[in-house]
Amino acid sequence: MTQLKNDTFLRALLRQPVDYTPVWMMRQAGRYLPEYRATRARAGSFMDLCMNPELACEVTLQPLERFPLDAAILFSDILTIPDAMGLGLYFAEGEGPHFEHPVRSAADVERIAVPDPEDGLRYVMDAVSLIRRELNGRVPLIGFSGSPWTLATYMVEGGSTKNYAFTKGMMYDRPELLHSLLAKVADSVTVYLNAQIARGAQAVMIFDTWGGALTPAKYLEFSLAYMQRVVSGLTREAEGRQVPVVLFTKNGGQWLDRMAETGCDALGVDWTTDLSAARLAVKDKVALQGNLDPCVLYASPERIREEVATVLASYGHGHGHVFNLGHGITPDVNPEHAGAMVAAVHELSPAYHQGV
Amino acid sequence: MTQLKNDTFLRALLRQPVDYTPVWMMRQAGRYLPEYRATRARAGSFMDLCMNPELACEVTLQPLERFPLDAAILFSDILTIPDAMGLGLYFAEGEGPHFEHPVRSAADVERIAVPDPEDGLRYVMDAVSLIRRELNGRVPLIGFSGSPWTLATYMVEGGSTKNYAFTKGMMYDRPELLHSLLAKVADSVTVYLNAQIARGAQAVMIFDTWGGALTPAKYLEFSLAYMQRVVSGLTREAEGRQVPVVLFTKNGGQWLDRMAETGCDALGVDWTTDLSAARLAVKDKVALQGNLDPCVLYASPERIREEVATVLASYGHGHGHVFNLGHGITPDVNPEHAGAMVAAVHELSPAYHQGV
Repeated sequence: MTQLKNDTFLRALLRQPVDYTPVWMMRQAGRYLPEYRATRARAGSFMDLCMNPELACEVTLQPLERFPLDAAILFSDILTIPDAMGLGLYFAEGEGPHFEHPVRSAADVERIAVPDPEDGLRYVMDAVSLIRRELNGRVPLIGFSGSPWTLATYMVEGGSTKNYAFTKGMMYDRPELLHSLLAKVADSVTVYLNAQIARGAQAVMIFDTWGGALTPAKYLEFSLAYMQRVVSGLTREAEGRQVPVVLFTKNGGQWLDRMAETGCDALGVDWTTDLSAARLAVKDKVALQGNLDPCVLYASPERIREEVATVLASYGHGHGHVFNLGHGITPDVNPEHAGAMVAAVHELSPAYHQGV
Repeated sequence: MTQLKNDTFLRALLRQPVDYTPVWMMRQAGRYLPEYRATRARAGSFMDLCMNPELACEVTLQPLERFPLDAAILFSDILTIPDAMGLGLYFAEGEGPHFEHPVRSAADVERIAVPDPEDGLRYVMDAVSLIRRELNGRVPLIGFSGSPWTLATYMVEGGSTKNYAFTKGMMYDRPELLHSLLAKVADSVTVYLNAQIARGAQAVMIFDTWGGALTPAKYLEFSLAYMQRVVSGLTREAEGRQVPVVLFTKNGGQWLDRMAETGCDALGVDWTTDLSAARLAVKDKVALQGNLDPCVLYASPERIREEVATVLASYGHGHGHVFNLGHGITPDVNPEHAGAMVAAVHELSPAYHQGV
């Protein structure tokens, strides 16, 4: 593989010295970019785009052409795993994702097998290989997966949900059934991420979008325990380098200390927790990634710069910070505002890395 | 006014001795009850129901006929205030609320006046009087309002929102404009709640549904500061009794300590924070109300009882706990399950009040 020209992101995740705070954006390859919308229109549906390695590669690289980002992230969807399990993913017009065959009974769980990533998820693996080749060592490539709990909510509900009626009903009424489902999903996530690493992902991130909907006790039992299981099973070195692992539970600010004990390298933090408080909570055991409110990008470039400064100051002096939004960039943001954020991070952050 | 036969709820909010933990449910008068759906069908639209004092009274009392609840809560909507300000509230079929005239410019804010509750909100006041008469002292009546921040998000967005693009755009770009709007809304909330108290509300609650979408600093500046302004302006005694004030910020678990300093009597707590941690955070300065995950009601009565026991144990021995769900009861819950919850609280809680 080509020599990596900019490894600032990987070093920051491992809390190694860097000259500035690296930056990328969740959903940086997305609808706010007109070039993304053009490729998406050529692809057909959203899943057609995900399943086409050439086009997935194209949109992955688009934000890097515009902004001097310090990492690329595989363009894909978190629902590829349940789709490969045969649940029948489809998107109804103007709605979120749906599954034809939700998982609700013991027989449903029994039927599910851990998908072979090089078989049913081959299109993801081919995209990873292609992106690595096209990146040509510019910046590292992030692989990712949904968390077991988050994937399970979609699988049990049969799509998006507001209340998690079926999943939480199962959790409270038949916890052992949900545990057996989560074990299978966790093993699927593990082999999926390891396959991405084998194909060239240089860091991996687990998105626990719905872990924050749980009580503290249920979060530990039904979400964090299975992320820990995944972390324990991951390949942690490839191409002679460590492969950092990032966990992100949206609305998980109260549990950062417990998340830091899983053996991961870094935690994503949303904007509802100050990085200063987060850093205290994790006792500098892991790096932190975040946490600008994505809505700051609706404001003027001058105000964006001020809010970037506030986030940098909140983390404070020292290494171990990767700048990011606290959640995905929204589709109605002006791309120039994203550029203003990236520029401000690169301009204002070196001061926090001098003499430390 | 009639003598109050059951004041357990009011005493618990003031951390006074009680024999058992009182219980009520957010949205207890709601769609999960077939008798509510029948009244609603007779009324016409949702707002027709809110604006009809007789029918609003009818649905307020319905859950009390089924369950031995320790409080009634006025049936109304949080958007009555912006509607009375002339923003033109309407509900599109199958969608959330909308306003014909969103508030986005300085001129828009300038145009808004604090509504006189006995004029444009007379239907709410008449409902309060009627409910108090019909309750006949059985249990106390809770009045309520949305928080200034929460109401402002609807007013600026012109309806429900996922990202708060306009409101947060204003917050980051024109904070002084948002402050002037919030000041007017806070004054409107204050006179509205005081009018409810004058008509017979025996406790009041402020619902800050969207405060949890803010960063810690912006929460203090744009949500909590205005709830504090309201609290400072409230009538705190009526009919020779204290009128307790409850604040509830959904997803506000990280800010309970700051909320407890506003001079309120109690805090609502959602299920993502353990009451044991919440109690430590507020240093027993205020009572706590909550916090069963509403999804527990999807489980069997046996499991509901176990989870009620867990919540009671989490608060532990001592007074100052009002049992509730951590958020509103969901429309697809079996009413018998709500009854199982209420029964479990009354049966299991006396042990926590003995010898303290």
